[in-house]
Order: sequence, then C-alpha cells, then structure tokens
Amino acid sequence: MRISIIQPITSPIDLSSEELEGLCKNGITCSVVNLNTGPCSIESRTDKAFAVPGMIATAQQEVQNGADAIVIDCFGDPGLDVLREVVDIPVLGVAQTSMNICASLADTFGVVTILKESIPVIIDSVNAYGHKDRFVGCHAIDMRSLEIKGQVNEMANRLAEQALSLVRDKGAHSIILGCTGFIGCAGEIRKRLEHSGFDIPVVDPMPVTVFSAIPLLRMGLTQSKESYPRHRPKKTKGYKEFE
Amino acid sequence: MRISIIQPITSPIDLSSEELEGLCKNGITCSVVNLNTGPCSIESRTDKAFAVPGMIATAQQEVQNGADAIVIDCFGDPGLDVLREVVDIPVLGVAQTSMNICASLADTFGVVTILKESIPVIIDSVNAYGHKDRFVGCHAIDMRSLEIKGQVNEMANRLAEQALSLVRDKGAHSIILGCTGFIGCAGEIRKRLEHSGFDIPVVDPMPVTVFSAIPLLRMGLTQSKESYPRHRPKKTKGYKEFE
Amino acid sequence: MRISIIQPITSPIDLSSEELEGLCKNGITCSVVNLNTGPCSIESRTDKAFAVPGMIATAQQEVQNGADAIVIDCFGDPGLDVLREVVDIPVLGVAQTSMNICASLADTFGVVTILKESIPVIIDSVNAYGHKDRFVGCHAIDMRSLEIKGQVNEMANRLAEQALSLVRDKGAHSIILGCTGFIGCAGEIRKRLEHSGFDIPVVDPMPVTVFSAIPLLRMGLTQSKESYPRHRPKKTKGYKEFE
Amino acid sequence: MRISIIQPITSPIDLSSEELEGLCKNGITCSVVNLNTGPCSIESRTDKAFAVPGMIATAQQEVQNGADAIVIDCFGDPGLDVLREVVDIPVLGVAQTSMNICASLADTFGVVTILKESIPVIIDSVNAYGHKDRFVGCHAIDMRSLEIKGQVNEMANRLAEQALSLVRDKGAHSIILGCTGFIGCAGEIRKRLEHSGFDIPVVDPMPVTVFSAIPLLRMGLTQSKESYPRHRPKKTKGYKEFE
Amino acid sequence: MRISIIQPITSPIDLSSEELEGLCKNGITCSVVNLNTGPCSIESRTDKAFAVPGMIATAQQEVQNGADAIVIDCFGDPGLDVLREVVDIPVLGVAQTSMNICASLADTFGVVTILKESIPVIIDSVNAYGHKDRFVGCHAIDMRSLEIKGQVNEMANRLAEQALSLVRDKGAHSIILGCTGFIGCAGEIRKRLEHSGFDIPVVDPMPVTVFSAIPLLRMGLTQSKESYPRHRPKKTKGYKEFE
Amino acid sequence: MRISIIQPITSPIDLSSEELEGLCKNGITCSVVNLNTGPCSIESRTDKAFAVPGMIATAQQEVQNGADAIVIDCFGDPGLDVLREVVDIPVLGVAQTSMNICASLADTFGVVTILKESIPVIIDSVNAYGHKDRFVGCHAIDMRSLEIKGQVNEMANRLAEQALSLVRDKGAHSIILGCTGFIGCAGEIRKRLEHSGFDIPVVDPMPVTVFSAIPLLRMGLTQSKESYPRHRPKKTKGYKEFE
Repeated sequence: MRISIIQPITSPIDLSSEELEGLCKNGITCSVVNLNTGPCSIESRTDKAFAVPGMIATAQQEVQNGADAIVIDCFGDPGLDVLREVVDIPVLGVAQTSMNICASLADTFGVVTILKESIPVIIDSVNAYGHKDRFVGCHAIDMRSLEIKGQVNEMANRLAEQALSLVRDKGAHSIILGCTGFIGCAGEIRKRLEHSGFDIPVVDPMPVTVFSAIPLLRMGLTQSKESYPRHRPKKTKGYKEFE
Repeated sequence: MRISIIQPITSPIDLSSEELEGLCKNGITCSVVNLNTGPCSIESRTDKAFAVPGMIATAQQEVQNGADAIVIDCFGDPGLDVLREVVDIPVLGVAQTSMNICASLADTFGVVTILKESIPVIIDSVNAYGHKDRFVGCHAIDMRSLEIKGQVNEMANRLAEQALSLVRDKGAHSIILGCTGFIGCAGEIRKRLEHSGFDIPVVDPMPVTVFSAIPLLRMGLTQSKESYPRHRPKKTKGYKEFE
Repeated sequence: MRISIIQPITSPIDLSSEELEGLCKNGITCSVVNLNTGPCSIESRTDKAFAVPGMIATAQQEVQNGADAIVIDCFGDPGLDVLREVVDIPVLGVAQTSMNICASLADTFGVVTILKESIPVIIDSVNAYGHKDRFVGCHAIDMRSLEIKGQVNEMANRLAEQALSLVRDKGAHSIILGCTGFIGCAGEIRKRLEHSGFDIPVVDPMPVTVFSAIPLLRMGLTQSKESYPRHRPKKTKGYKEFE
Repeated sequence: MRISIIQPITSPIDLSSEELEGLCKNGITCSVVNLNTGPCSIESRTDKAFAVPGMIATAQQEVQNGADAIVIDCFGDPGLDVLREVVDIPVLGVAQTSMNICASLADTFGVVTILKESIPVIIDSVNAYGHKDRFVGCHAIDMRSLEIKGQVNEMANRLAEQALSLVRDKGAHSIILGCTGFIGCAGEIRKRLEHSGFDIPVVDPMPVTVFSAIPLLRMGLTQSKESYPRHRPKKTKGYKEFE
Repeated sequence: MRISIIQPITSPIDLSSEELEGLCKNGITCSVVNLNTGPCSIESRTDKAFAVPGMIATAQQEVQNGADAIVIDCFGDPGLDVLREVVDIPVLGVAQTSMNICASLADTFGVVTILKESIPVIIDSVNAYGHKDRFVGCHAIDMRSLEIKGQVNEMANRLAEQALSLVRDKGAHSIILGCTGFIGCAGEIRKRLEHSGFDIPVVDPMPVTVFSAIPLLRMGLTQSKESYPRHRPKKTKGYKEFE
Repeated sequence: MRISIIQPITSPIDLSSEELEGLCKNGITCSVVNLNTGPCSIESRTDKAFAVPGMIATAQQEVQNGADAIVIDCFGDPGLDVLREVVDIPVLGVAQTSMNICASLADTFGVVTILKESIPVIIDSVNAYGHKDRFVGCHAIDMRSLEIKGQVNEMANRLAEQALSLVRDKGAHSIILGCTGFIGCAGEIRKRLEHSGFDIPVVDPMPVTVFSAIPLLRMGLTQSKESYPRHRPKKTKGYKEFE
C-alpha cells in the first residue's frame, strides 16, 4: 500500500527521515510530494485557493505513479472535495479524519492552531463535516507555520497552555493539534494534560490520517461517486500545468 | 454606486444589453468582467477551484477601478469567502443572497439547476449557509450551462416541470433558479406555478443579488473582519497574474 | 416605490425629518403611520399582542392608499406573520431582516437591547428565524424605550459597552441594535468597536430593512402563499376598528 | 384543584356535560369560559391574533375567581406565551403538552387537523417547542372547525384515513389530533390504526392537557419568570375591556 | 391506579412513610420494589448495565401483580427503553419526564447531581431525549448517593450553591434535581434561588413523574409499539432469575 | 497488535477460519471470544441489556490476557459505553466506526439490517453518534440473525434489493451492512449497485472496525477519561461471574 502525502505548498519537503519512517509501518509505504503551482504556506482561505489547481495536477500525477491513496498534509484540508472529484483512489483530509476520530473517542474536542487568522478555516471544516455540536473552540498560539520548526520548545509550551485552557475552561474532552507542522508533539501535550488531571486523547493529525487509510484500502473503500461525481475535464486558461 | 459583476469564467461576457439595463436601476450602475485565468464554465467543485485564483486578481483590479461592491455571477458562489478576505468592499454571492431572501419569504425552498453533477456544489452551499432545515431538494434539468442560451423554450419547460415537482412532491414554498444562466426566466416559471395553484416566489439569483447590495452600501455595511480576517499577501508560484 | 413604515404603537410618530429624509433614497419614498388601537410602547410579548389587531386595520388601510411594501418599525417584529396572511404586498420585519443580513456578513451576531425583560421576545425571533447557531447572546442597557430619546449620550455609552462585551467575551462577529429607537447610533458604536480592535458590522435595523425592500419590489417578490395562506375574513367581536 | 379552560373564541361553549364530567376526575374540577373580545373561530395566525387581547382580560378574571391553572382550549395555543407573562398560575397549551407527551412515548409524531391553511400555525408550534426532528408532517381533513360537530362520522373517517397515511407513508409512531374540536375521537382512531397493524398512541389534546396540570399543581410548579418575565401593565388604546 | 416504583438497586427501600404518603394523592396508590439482581447503587453507565436484567424480571412480576404503570426511581433512567419493549403498561423515566416538564415551563434547564463521574450518564439522556439546545450544564455536589441521606443540610447547601451557579453563570431558567435521593429538597432550593432574585421552577424528579402517570392512565396512553417493538423472549444463559 | 473480538452472545463462535485469516493482516492478530452470561442472539434493546454484564467480565479477562484493543462484534454496539468505563484499552463499536467512515466518504448513508424490530436499536445509535442529518433510513430483509448463515444467496438478493431502494428512493450515497452476520457480502452488494448505476461504498462493519484499530494503536490513542470516567467497582448481587 503506497500512500502519497501531498504537501499543498511549493516550499521544499520538511518531514524528517525519522518522521517518515514512523509512517511506514503496518504494511504502508509513504512518499511525500509538494507543488509546482501554489503558495509558500497555508494560513488563510486565500492560501488554500492558491493551492488547489496545483494539487489537481499533482494528484493526477501521483495516481499515474501508482499511489493507492492520497493524504493532504495541511490541517486546512485544501482541495479535499476537489481531489475526490478528480481521482478514484481514496483522498483523506487530516482535519476531517482527526475530527472523526475524536468523535469516536470523546464527547467533545478542541483545536489548537497557529494563528488567530487561521481559525475561520478550521471553523469552516467543523461545520462542513458536521461536528458543530462537539466542537468547543479553537485557540491559537500566535506562531506562523514556517516559524515553528525552529522553536519547538516554545511551541510545545504554548500548545500545552492553550490545550489546557480548552479542556479546563471550555470542556474539551479531546484535543486536536490543528496544524500538521506540530507533528510529533502530541505525546508531550498529552503528558502535560494528564499531569493537570486530564487523561484525554491528543490527536496528531497527519500520522493518524496515514494509518486511517489502512481500513479503507484493506476493504476496497473509496469516496462515493454520488457525493463526489467524476469531474468532466474541460478547457482552462492561464494554468501552465494544464496547457 | 458602481457594482462589479464578476463572471468567474474566461469565455466572453454573455449578458444582453437589455439584461444589463434592467440592473442599472435605483441608483446602481453595473459593470461586468470575466477572467484571464480560469475555466470556460462552472459545473463542479473542480471548475470552481480553477476560477478562484483568477477571481482574486480581477477583484483587486475592480477595487482599484473604484467598484463599490462585488457580485459573483455564478450560482456556485466560487471564491465568495476568499474574496471577502482579499477586499474590503462588500462581496455578495448569488446563492447565499437568494437563499437568505427565501428564508425571509417562505418556510422552505427548492432549487432547480443544470446538471445532476452540479447538485453537490449546491448542497455544500445550503449546508455552509445554515439552510439545511429549509432546503427540500435540488432538481436538475440536464442541460449544460453553455447550451442553455440557445434553447430557451426547452429550458423554461424543463425548469417549470422540475419546479412544480419540488413544490408538489417535496413541499417547496419557494423556488430558486440555481444557475445564473437562467436569468430572466423567473416570471415565466412563477406564472406556470401559479397556474398549477401555487402562488409562491421564484428567485432570479443574479439580479436580486445586485439590488441586495443597495442596503449594504447605503448603510456602510461590509463583511466582518472577525469572520473574514484580512489575508496577508505572500509569495505564490506558477500564477502568471501574480508574478 | 412607496414604503409604509408602520409604528405598532399609539403614541405620536417620533422619526425626525432628517431621519425620514435619509430613508428616501435610491428611488424610495417612505411614509410613517401609527395605530389607533394598541399599546403605548412595546417591551414584552404582551405589548406585542395588544399591537397586532390595530396593525391589521392599519396595514389594510395602507394597501388601499397605494403602499408597495410594509416595514414594521419595532424590533419585536409584532404581527409580521399575521400581516403576511392579510396583505399581498411584501411585509418586512426589522429583526428578521437584520438577522438575515448578519448571516450574510458574519459567522455570528449579538444583539443589544433596552430591557432585560425584552430579551425573551428577541430569543423567540432568533429561534423562529432559524439563527440559533449564529446567535451569541443579547445584552440589555436597562433603559425603557420611551426614555432613550432624551438621553442619547448615555444610551450610546451603554450600547458601546454592551456591544464590546458581546464581541470580546461571547464571540460576536457582528452586532444588531435591538430596538428601532436606537436609530442613527450604528456608526458611533461601530467606530468605538473598531477602536477596541474589532472591525465588524453594526446593523441599524429599521433603515437597513427599508432599503432591503428594494430587491423585493424590483424583482416582484413577496411572501409565499404556501407559507402564509390568505386569511379568510371572519366575524370578530369587541374590536371597534373592525365593526 | 380548579382548572379554568379558556376557549379563545366568542361563540357559546360547546363541551357536552358528559365531556366536562370526564375531565373532573382525580381531584380536578374544571370550568369553561369564552371571550368577550375575539374571533368566532381560530383557523389562522390572524384569528389567533384577534383572540389574545380578550384572553388576557379573561385570564386575569379567572385568577381573581380562584383558578389554580389555565388550559387554553385551542390547538393553535393562542396567547400561551402572553398569558404566562400576565398570570402566575400555570398556563398550559394543548399543542405543547400533546407534543411533549408524544416525545415521551414515541420517536416521532404526526398531526391531523382541519384545514390546509391551518397547517402553518401548527408548524410554527412544532418549531417553537423544539420538536422539528420528531415531526413527520401534518395532514388536513378539509373541514372547518365549526362544521365538525355536525358530521362526526365523516370526520372520524377522514381522521382515520389521514392518520393512517401519516403512519404508513411518513413514519409517524404516534398521532396527535390537531384540533380540540376532535375531542373524544382518539379511541376510535387508535382502534382503526391498530386494525391496520399499528399499535400506537393517539393523543386527544385537551383532556390530556387538563390532567397534565396535576403534576404541576401537586408539586407547586409554574412557568419560569426568567423565561416569562412579569409583564409591566401599561396604557393601551382602543380596547374596551382594558379601559 | 396503582403505580409501581422500581428502585433499580438491591439495597433496602429508603422512601420514608411520609414521602410515600405524599405520592398517594389524586387517585394514585404507589408501591416500591427493589431488585434481586443488580448493583447496590447507580453512579455510572456500568452500574446502570448491572441493573437492567434484574429490572426486567421485576417489571414482569409487577405487571402480573396488577401494576398500572411503572416509574423507574433513578435519575439515570436505567432500563427505560428496555422495559418499554418488555411490558405494555406505561413505563416512565424520571429524567425524561423532568426534562419534558422543564421544556414546557422554561427556555432552558440545568441539572445538579451527586458526582462528577455521573455527569456523562445525564448528558447521554439529554442527547437521547432531544434536549441538547435547552440544557445549559450539569454540576455535581461531590457526595455519593448512599451518603446523602445522612447529611441533609450539607446536601441542601451544596445543591443551592450549584443551582445558583447554573442560573447566574450559565443561564438556566429552571433546575432539575438530578438524583432521586434528593427527594423533598426542591422547595428549599427554590426558596433560596428566589431569595437571590430568580423565581424559577425546581423539579423534584421522582414525585413529579409519579403524578405525570395520571394523564397517561386517564387517557389510556402508553409507549408506541412502533418505537418500542415487543421483545420476543429468547434463551439467556447465566441469569438465575430467568432460568 | 492483538485485537480481541468479543461476540456478545453465548452461542459458539461462527467466524470461518478464512474470515478470521482475512482480519489478520497489516500487523494485526485477532482472537474471538463469546460470553458465559448473555443472550443467544441480539435483535432488540432487551437482548443488548442481557449481554452487557457478561461482556464486562469477558473484557476484563481479555485485558488480563494481553489484548491491545476490543472490537464488539454486533451492529447494536452493546456495551460500548460501558466497556469504555471499565477498561483502558480502546474499545470500538462496529456501528459507530462504520457510520464515521461513511461520514468521511459520502454525504449520506443508509443501513440494511435483519428485522424490522431491530431498526429502533440502529436509530438509537444514529442519534447517539450524531449522524441524524446523514442517515436516510434503515431497511430490513426480514431474516433472523441465526438464520442467515444457511441462506447466503437469499440474503444477498434481499440485501441488494433493499440497498438499491435506499439509494434510488431515499438518496443514500453509501450503504452500511447493519448486522455483523452479513460479513463478506459487501463486495457483492457493491457490484450490484454499480450495475444499477450507483458507484458507492458498501461497508462491512466488523472487518473495517478491526482495521480501524490500527491508527488508534499506532498513535497510542484510546477513549477519553473525561467522556468515559473510570468505573469504581462496587458490590453487585445475583451475577455469578462477579461473585
């Protein structure tokens, strides 16, 4: 089972080899690609919009290269609905998958993310996926997505603080790390919450989504063509990749 | 008050001078623009995605040219949330405006549109705008958006038939014409429904949205920056219009 | 387009000529009438009930006098559903219209009103119009409706304070002035919120509703007879105006 | 425990002495009053509006006469919220009580009523009382409220037919008789449904509401003053009963 | 009318003769039974599960002994749905009945209960009965169910404090005592809330449920067999009472 | 990773060795256990209640035997919430998991099950898991759970027929096989639906749930102790397994 992890940005790939190795378990192999056309980072609806055309080209290429499933490596789930119209293999969004997992494990969830201005994107997802009644709120740590790699300790401190506030003050029974750049922090945040008396799941969105492809692939399941009808290709203007 | 009507496609403008004149009433003047970068028509989520980057460039240009409000001339409301992050003048979507007007005038509404494969786009809007409880369904007339101009009678017959089915069988108390290409047909459909015993509103989405800009402009209202935070410009790759 | 503004109280009309002039724009002329039968002010469900019979007589008279649309000049929307059964021209409620406009411009809204005891009336409207999920709360400034004209500064101070509390503590992304007696204050409240860092719409309900009649009248739209069936006149006892 | 049954119409009282006797059980005595000011029958929102002012006067009189609770004898629940602001004893609506009882006994309910034009009044109640998810629909038997007493067999046949349609075609798990004029028919309708294979409750709204006052009176419960603040009396004009 | 009050625990019966007498009013006689198979107290979902098999045996016995209705004497409503499949007489849950009564008397309600770990059971009920929109929260007084009889004053103090917090801070317009062990305290809590300025209903769940059987029995109503199909008896293993 | 599949019935295990082998993939090993105390089959809420006490004993035993996760092998999800209070390893319900997977892959789902009388159990789950808006209905094939193994062809025919009806007439965009006895049929049903023009997922609940344990185990995730507080053991009477 080969899973293609599409990073919907044009900057170079930033998964460490150790992180990648951690994903290649239980019969899975993963490859990571990024975009020729698109934004350098995703922090708003506008950034998402700039990512999608390039993702279509990339996804079609990945299918030709034999990918069995696609995971979109950004908590905004850019292009999720679109790619499902364009390819037949399962396409998984990390926000949708994480929220569905929280819906199984807990009554409510809260999200910690990077910037206040990224919160509307996450609320759009909460509403679109039908989790409004479970969602207690989203708190930001006020760090930009391209900054966090260099300040891991500061990031963890702020994440733990905001997570605790969501749990203690807003009734979150589980926490989702709302940016794929937070990869690898879930264990630390979970330990700190437990230390404050809250024994709850903390979801690291990208890896949990990669492993969530296994039940789909094993059972031959993919998105419904009634909900995501096959897109009929048509002429576009101004896109180098599609000319 | 100058309203910029953005057609989110690259094909030449198709409003007749008579149609345009009908919009320039009650103190409004309108101009119509279309895209340099984008699809030739919009019938799916994928088409919508190809339209948005070009719409951003166009909207910014229209603001510089002195537009007071933007109306997006496509029932899929492509780029509605994105443009609201990018410009400060009010941006109106024709689906959102039509659904809100039906919510004022009737308990329920149904939508008639072009293709079965376009229905998921409309259901996305119904859900995003919070109208799930009022929406009774969407029926398609099975004509592509670029075909309808040449077959006005056939189109009206099919629209009336599907509208009547929504009213009679599904309990629609109002009807929305779910494609801006149906402009000018609402009166005829309304007359036929009345003839069948149903005296209900039929909403022509684009013109009603143009006039709905008046209360906003007159009162100095525009989208909330808390819901639509100002997008911070950043580098993109592969978009000619943004290089 | 002549719009009849019905004040659902028996006290003399209190719009200044300047306020009235501000409404007569974009092709609209307005006239203001009040009631022969009814209460002296509206602050509770009971007050609303005393207003409706007199409103029916007044609305029928206004239709005979050639009105093109009716706007009910009270944030309780008294008689809105009833008048829609009684006349064929569009009847607009200022609360319903304001809430629908906020639904277009922002994710959430809060309301500031006169008295704590008036809040249930507003919550009834929020629920009836389907805005429960967007409504963050209603705060009162503790001034009676007939007092506010004489204390404009105090009123503005209290409105700004309560609006800020709704935005900062409850997450309101837009504010509705929940009493038509607050006419003309929206700009001032908006400025103060912006000063506190919140760039959001503040809706003045009556004027925005008057201008919202334009899209309906221009497009020939009125309430659905399926949702508001024509009332069959019948004998009543004890109402002087109907004998 | 004396329960005052207010008939919100001006026509003479139409409960048979046998019907009244059936209500005076389990420690209850009942009295029936009707209005000096109001409509001759209630079939629309407009009729409801004409009833409420007269109901206020009548309710206040009944409290002075020592009533322990008020039951409003009309399925439109006219004046329910208003009387709760005006008197301190419990005020019960027959539609609200019946719907709450169905919510205890069954997953879903349907309503059979008199006229198609009365259905919006019932849907208003379903929504206001929070039963939208349980309500499968309302069917009318096309008889006016003042006609039904003379055509009991025809009425029962039509009620049974419409009730069966709601159960078989729309999934109703219980039935509410949606007009207090149908008093005494529930047993017959229930028998016929059972004969068709559906063993479900059929609710006769007025008597069940009278008996539902017992738990409230026995426990000293009445409407919350937070939800129904005490109305402050004020001057009204044009109402003979209040001058 | 004989009502069987089933205490879903194996410990001896703890209603005082005075409490029992207060229930035998308005034509009702009550008897109280407890279980041979089951837990010693109910504070979690697990406790509830241990109670249900024994409740089935007890309920069948009570029907044979001529009971007219069953009331389950525990705020967790254990076995409510199950007993409705097993017997034909009405089965009433005290949580469901209390919540429905609050839905009639107030816009919102809060619950005070024994332990923090019992709250999920109550939230399960709120959701299952469709009261999510009215429920403002549940506060615990941190006393175990078998402790409270010996510390009535302390219990009342803590209940009043938590009730006031739900009303003042969370907007509860009515309060439910969320443990049947709190029997007899409602009047005291209500008096204290009124003293703090809140004139609202406080519901004592078990007695109000007993009296709520009267309207059902008087009208011949019981649970719908469409919602609660008759259980077909089958072989079980390991249950002494069913061998 | 060892997954314990608990069959909540007392009859001998009925998974074929081939079926079991199909589950032992991607690093998983599975073992199947059934109950000492419980019913012979599960078709109603009452059957579910008889299963839970025995499941508690079995689950505790399985944890001691080193199980890493528990899957409950019955579409009624009996004991799901209870086991989550009793053990710390992840407990997965097949209905909850299947519905969450459909929520990822399609807008709506329908369920096909064994008996009409089993439908309320499934609707309970739909509501409890928050999928009411996606659920289009449940159809029964009228075969008892212990009959189906012997009539595989008849079963498949009836399943395909009912699935098609849910898709064509009720708008299901995905199908869940609503009984774990249907194991292995999903491919066949899917093929038949595709043949009728509907290219949609058909979910086989038990195997997909087994594989869905992988992302949880790999990421160290289990149910939240805030939603499922640890049950404090206490004395029960009448349960042989707990004495």
